[in-house]
Amino acid sequence: MIKTRRDFLMRVGQAGGYSAAFATMQSLGLMPMLASDASEVDLPADAGKGVKVAVLGGGIAGLVSAYEMRKAGFQCTVLEARSRPGGRNWTVRNGTTVEFTDGTRQAAQWDAGNYLNAGPARIPSIHKTMLGYCNELDVPLEVEVNTSRSALLVSDKAFGGKAVEQRQAINDTRGHVAELLAKCIKQSALDHDLTSEDRERMLEFLRIYGDLKGDLKYQGSLRAGAAQLPGAGPVVEQLRAPLEMSALLDAGFWRGMMFEETLDMQATMFQPVGGMDRIPYAFAKSLGNMVQYNAPVKEIRKTANGVKILYSRNGATQALEADYCVCAMPITILKSIPNDFSARVNAAIRDTTYADAYKVAWESKRFWETDFNIYGGISWLTGGPIGLVWYPSARLSSKTGVVVAGYAVEGNSEFGKLPDTAAKLAASRAAVERLHPGYGQHLAKPIYVNWGKIANNLGSWVGRGTGGDYYEGPYKEFTTPDDRFYFAGDHCSHVGAWQEGAALAAHRTLRMLGERVKAEKLTGALKSARV
Amino acid sequence: MIKTRRDFLMRVGQAGGYSAAFATMQSLGLMPMLASDASEVDLPADAGKGVKVAVLGGGIAGLVSAYEMRKAGFQCTVLEARSRPGGRNWTVRNGTTVEFTDGTRQAAQWDAGNYLNAGPARIPSIHKTMLGYCNELDVPLEVEVNTSRSALLVSDKAFGGKAVEQRQAINDTRGHVAELLAKCIKQSALDHDLTSEDRERMLEFLRIYGDLKGDLKYQGSLRAGAAQLPGAGPVVEQLRAPLEMSALLDAGFWRGMMFEETLDMQATMFQPVGGMDRIPYAFAKSLGNMVQYNAPVKEIRKTANGVKILYSRNGATQALEADYCVCAMPITILKSIPNDFSARVNAAIRDTTYADAYKVAWESKRFWETDFNIYGGISWLTGGPIGLVWYPSARLSSKTGVVVAGYAVEGNSEFGKLPDTAAKLAASRAAVERLHPGYGQHLAKPIYVNWGKIANNLGSWVGRGTGGDYYEGPYKEFTTPDDRFYFAGDHCSHVGAWQEGAALAAHRTLRMLGERVKAEKLTGALKSARV
Repeated sequence: MIKTRRDFLMRVGQAGGYSAAFATMQSLGLMPMLASDASEVDLPADAGKGVKVAVLGGGIAGLVSAYEMRKAGFQCTVLEARSRPGGRNWTVRNGTTVEFTDGTRQAAQWDAGNYLNAGPARIPSIHKTMLGYCNELDVPLEVEVNTSRSALLVSDKAFGGKAVEQRQAINDTRGHVAELLAKCIKQSALDHDLTSEDRERMLEFLRIYGDLKGDLKYQGSLRAGAAQLPGAGPVVEQLRAPLEMSALLDAGFWRGMMFEETLDMQATMFQPVGGMDRIPYAFAKSLGNMVQYNAPVKEIRKTANGVKILYSRNGATQALEADYCVCAMPITILKSIPNDFSARVNAAIRDTTYADAYKVAWESKRFWETDFNIYGGISWLTGGPIGLVWYPSARLSSKTGVVVAGYAVEGNSEFGKLPDTAAKLAASRAAVERLHPGYGQHLAKPIYVNWGKIANNLGSWVGRGTGGDYYEGPYKEFTTPDDRFYFAGDHCSHVGAWQEGAALAAHRTLRMLGERVKAEKLTGALKSARV
Repeated sequence: MIKTRRDFLMRVGQAGGYSAAFATMQSLGLMPMLASDASEVDLPADAGKGVKVAVLGGGIAGLVSAYEMRKAGFQCTVLEARSRPGGRNWTVRNGTTVEFTDGTRQAAQWDAGNYLNAGPARIPSIHKTMLGYCNELDVPLEVEVNTSRSALLVSDKAFGGKAVEQRQAINDTRGHVAELLAKCIKQSALDHDLTSEDRERMLEFLRIYGDLKGDLKYQGSLRAGAAQLPGAGPVVEQLRAPLEMSALLDAGFWRGMMFEETLDMQATMFQPVGGMDRIPYAFAKSLGNMVQYNAPVKEIRKTANGVKILYSRNGATQALEADYCVCAMPITILKSIPNDFSARVNAAIRDTTYADAYKVAWESKRFWETDFNIYGGISWLTGGPIGLVWYPSARLSSKTGVVVAGYAVEGNSEFGKLPDTAAKLAASRAAVERLHPGYGQHLAKPIYVNWGKIANNLGSWVGRGTGGDYYEGPYKEFTTPDDRFYFAGDHCSHVGAWQEGAALAAHRTLRMLGERVKAEKLTGALKSARV
């Protein structure tokens, strides 16, 4: 389904020729991607012939690396500390145990088919590289409903603390904005900014934009929902009284209202049917015994002409020697692994901190569908420790579902300061109760995942706010090869915390590695190393 | 999954008691429906015991009528002119023949799984009655993607006739509106309308709303898409230059931009997996031989104490006698059927005209997905005979799909004035080419459905603009029983052209019929009629 990078280059070529410099930049990931292009590595099928690579970490970056290197003839081994592939791409379902580094354990006991994507949980349609892998690996996708106009907004500062539908807040806000701007235009406030023709056209536009009445006043709109829906016989629609602008300003719903316009949150979004981990399991199935599970890395060493990775297996230390290493492990974990990285890379490791994102999920009957018309989407809360409640897009209209009531970085937040897990679960339930009074009682079988407390991760993604800007400092070190060590992961991209970033970073790394191997083969350096 | 009407009444009762008058109004469909309630008929299981009803027409209203009357003990026969159930709920797929009243025929020859919902093609989540039937009848639903930010807008009056992404038009428009209003507020144009505190809060809101920069100027936003998406290594995002407001005013994209806010077009929307006709076929399966196919109605007569329907079957005229008749046929068809309706109803039939909505559909490889990131949703065209191109939500990422290039009322429109079908198909292909230059050639195997030319319908829905207002005139006649004749259909509701309207009208009709039967049983009138 995906157009290839090669197609793109050919099209560019047809449009007027392209230089070797352009092609090289493209191959190194230095050229812009068109929105409609998936990234491809595009190494010749024999590029890696006779070259052995150790891949550290079986998350998306490691799996993509091994999968693509195999296509190019490399001999790869992936070392994965866990008994499963995927890293942060982790789906919790019936039978899954969530164990924290403090020893606490939670066992998910949910109905068959219910799940929590504890890590990534959506794929935007602009993430063509990951969508391309889903297609290539036969991972069925379904629509992830990221926005529902029936979902709610609630603030402790407005509307008596009662939730309002997003259709109401969004369309009443637009109505007020349109009315106010129309009033200014009529009062000549923009006579210096707009031609008289454009002023007239603006008024006509604002009439449609805000659903204003003839006098350019906003008096409510069916867009905002109905006090009474139209029906049969004599039952006609009745508008809701519009929410007042001053009350909307009190509420400050803006973050939740604008969320859907975030580029990588815009419709259409996807999720794999059955859980996000269908993706790493599909990679793993394809890679077979190239992936070594239960093989935590203990030391990362250089040899005279290659690398040597010490790892643990069934209680014994084993060694993996290779020509190169693609290190796709979390930086948090690298902090405590003895290594032969350069001083600059070890400094970057030291200077990098991770955020501790969490999710709280509950199983419940689907009251949000039956009683609130909410099918997928997110409700937002202002004030209080929980900022959002995210409804499942999977198995719509089935009997039960898993709802996420709380997803954010815990850190020093109001939620993070709660004394214990019981208090956090209570806050999560209370958030649902604020949105859906009387329904909090239906939540059962909670699962609380805090990535800061999950072994082999110790964090969710690079923390941008702490200890200097990651992208101004450490980033450069991880995106530059360190002799025979190459790095990959979402932290080696500007698409942090997304699987797409991990895949793009893996691709760029492999292109760099391909160039290196090609050069070394030409000079004979690689051959002598292998002899 | 659906809360019952009874639940609703109980909740109302618990909240403070309710009167018999309220309950009666409710039962007659005179009370508002809550957004979260499905309509239910709520007749006792023996309400129709010993009562025979002739249902004319096996569209949604007729099927719902028979299905609900069976629950209440009525003895029903549905007479359907066609060999299939559903009426306008008609899915064209491989093997379907589309025959017009002028004798022209088209045969759909599409890949397995591809289809066109020639009639209704989406179910909004506020249409709880139809969603309830899908649940009750085990009709699997999937999300119908009604809006995609990657879908396009094109106008002959702006941007050199080139299409722009909806994300760009929508977010650049919002940015300009926010900047202009902020400027007015800063220039004191609204000092009389807003308190000084609200002016400050408005500016802060507008900053977020329009993604304005520090000086409250709009300089583009990642919401509007990227000239370059962020990537791996050095590849950072680059904003697009914003579309200018004056050019957006030239373009006049407003209809397409605001479509998603129409109440019954708002996310989340649904479609049955495999085609909309899964719904009537599920009803028909349940009703079994209660539905007589190939049984066109020829005369609608009264008897001394009941009704007598003459219909044709295998070339012979047959008679169906019953106590009551629920007439769920299109008004267009009733115009030419001899009947014993009252003069007021026949006048209403005469005064009612139907619109002739059409759809043009093509099979194609899914270039809109692979090359444009468009998964479902609708692109809109300004200028020219075709106003929209609607991409399939079914089987996303499969090899081919059926795209609708043209859906509107034909009537006296620019499209309707085209000389023949060839010209209409050419216009349809040209619309796709305007949006997706170079891709129009991929469209193949067109199907053009004009409901005005489909026998047994002769129209798509009540035409509101012609010959006086339908809802001011004929509507009252069809929503009032005519002795033993009761009417049902979307034209008996204020939810015209929607299946929900047909179902709500059927429910209201059955409630009225239930009251009538109850009264007649009490007075003995029905019993004597049956003796």
